[in-house]
Amino acid sequence: MKFARIGSPGAEIPAVSQDGSLFSLEKITDDIDGVFLSGNGAAKAAEALAAGRLPRIDREAVRFGAPIARPAAVICIGQNYAAHAAESGSSAPEHPIVFFKHPNTVVGPNDPLVLPKGSGKTDWEVELGVVIGKRASYLASKEDATDHIAGFVTVNDLSEREFQLGVSGGQWSKGKSSPGFCPTGPYLVTPDEVDARGLMLRSWVNGEPRQESSTADMIFDVETLIWDLSQFMVLEPGDLICTGTPQGVALSGRFPYLQPGDTVEIEIEGIGRQRQEVMAHGEG
Amino acid sequence: MKFARIGSPGAEIPAVSQDGSLFSLEKITDDIDGVFLSGNGAAKAAEALAAGRLPRIDREAVRFGAPIARPAAVICIGQNYAAHAAESGSSAPEHPIVFFKHPNTVVGPNDPLVLPKGSGKTDWEVELGVVIGKRASYLASKEDATDHIAGFVTVNDLSEREFQLGVSGGQWSKGKSSPGFCPTGPYLVTPDEVDARGLMLRSWVNGEPRQESSTADMIFDVETLIWDLSQFMVLEPGDLICTGTPQGVALSGRFPYLQPGDTVEIEIEGIGRQRQEVMAHGEG
Repeated sequence: MKFARIGSPGAEIPAVSQDGSLFSLEKITDDIDGVFLSGNGAAKAAEALAAGRLPRIDREAVRFGAPIARPAAVICIGQNYAAHAAESGSSAPEHPIVFFKHPNTVVGPNDPLVLPKGSGKTDWEVELGVVIGKRASYLASKEDATDHIAGFVTVNDLSEREFQLGVSGGQWSKGKSSPGFCPTGPYLVTPDEVDARGLMLRSWVNGEPRQESSTADMIFDVETLIWDLSQFMVLEPGDLICTGTPQGVALSGRFPYLQPGDTVEIEIEGIGRQRQEVMAHGEG
Repeated sequence: MKFARIGSPGAEIPAVSQDGSLFSLEKITDDIDGVFLSGNGAAKAAEALAAGRLPRIDREAVRFGAPIARPAAVICIGQNYAAHAAESGSSAPEHPIVFFKHPNTVVGPNDPLVLPKGSGKTDWEVELGVVIGKRASYLASKEDATDHIAGFVTVNDLSEREFQLGVSGGQWSKGKSSPGFCPTGPYLVTPDEVDARGLMLRSWVNGEPRQESSTADMIFDVETLIWDLSQFMVLEPGDLICTGTPQGVALSGRFPYLQPGDTVEIEIEGIGRQRQEVMAHGEG
């Protein structure tokens, strides 16, 4: 299944995508949220879809919101690709590095990106996002993690490097939580549709390639991350885990930071593609 | 006004405290949440209380939950008291240091503290918590911040120092988000009842004093923190800001970390007192 949320910001309706068409899930659920994901929602949606009980949505001019309701937490993993750790001036971590974004940063995948006030160093980060489907606390092994995954999303873990590193005292969240800094979607793809262990992740600015790697290059894979996180916090249905970004960001010094007028695109194979037009603060 | 939430975990009802009595707010609101706090809730509650329209709650054997519904975000400020920065091995920060706790760590003020699995370094931190009452984004000055405060709470920003510093890669959230790590309350005290600029904060373990300082010693005061945070994120009604802890924690090396059987107490003058009995993992 590929879930989506369609409509204007704050008024999205739940939907499912099949063969390029969108069908409303309003008869099944109010939202794609923790209650739906933990309550056998995907099976109910599949059954209703197969029975032809879901009304088709006119695809003309629809806006995709984030494919999940606002999470209780957006949990991020830092430096989970060795080459990105290196370009950031660090060695590969021995343990997963954990920080949070404010959950109100989650926005639609193609919403304009308004640069934060005073920003000169806004940077892109394509990441595989994992949405939790079942409460996870003190999992016994990484093998147990699979059962707790509701699905996967494309995430742009936008980062303002001066806020993150220059005026932060070393704690990164300050540069990770500006308004609109977590474009998510367009789709939530259930695990039966995709093998997350070897997906290409790519990003472009103004059509020029930036990042190009595979989720196979993760230092800690998805199951290890869920198992590890569950030792330090309770993961809840609907929580979003951003699993880290590969090399090819502006922080490396190889590319300029984002400017008004730029277009950022990111894509994960089999999961979805995003496009953000960059605007100056006050322009949005 | 002093708000509280009374009842078993997950089933608390909203209440207001007056002269040692508790009165149910169920006729006024479903919860002490962002909608209530931003919608002139305190004035409505005061009016109903003065008119004698609120039923009294029997205080015998009540459990206090956190006095606010689960926040969208728990935003923490690090090393905001110079002497605590020093005991942690750091100099005073030039800018506020920001990290998050998972919002599901918020529990009642007197709930037992079950040590995390594998924990040998669980530490207390008494902190003044500020609850946001009105959306704040890019505030022009610290003077503008006052209008965005719904009230104050006592918070124990519990921390596992090995998780926070030993296996974290330097990002603190991993040691701040274990289950039950944010006891909050018992009261949400509105700003008209208290001047937050000079309140004594104290903590004790097994009745022996640990921390004893004043909020006057904060490096960045409450208004400066709200103004500063609003430059880096949108603060929403119901969000909880933990404003940092003073010296006197176990991390200093002067006191042992918490052990099963210990009792932790913390208090902020005019805001409220908490008491947690420490239990081993698996005992809770």
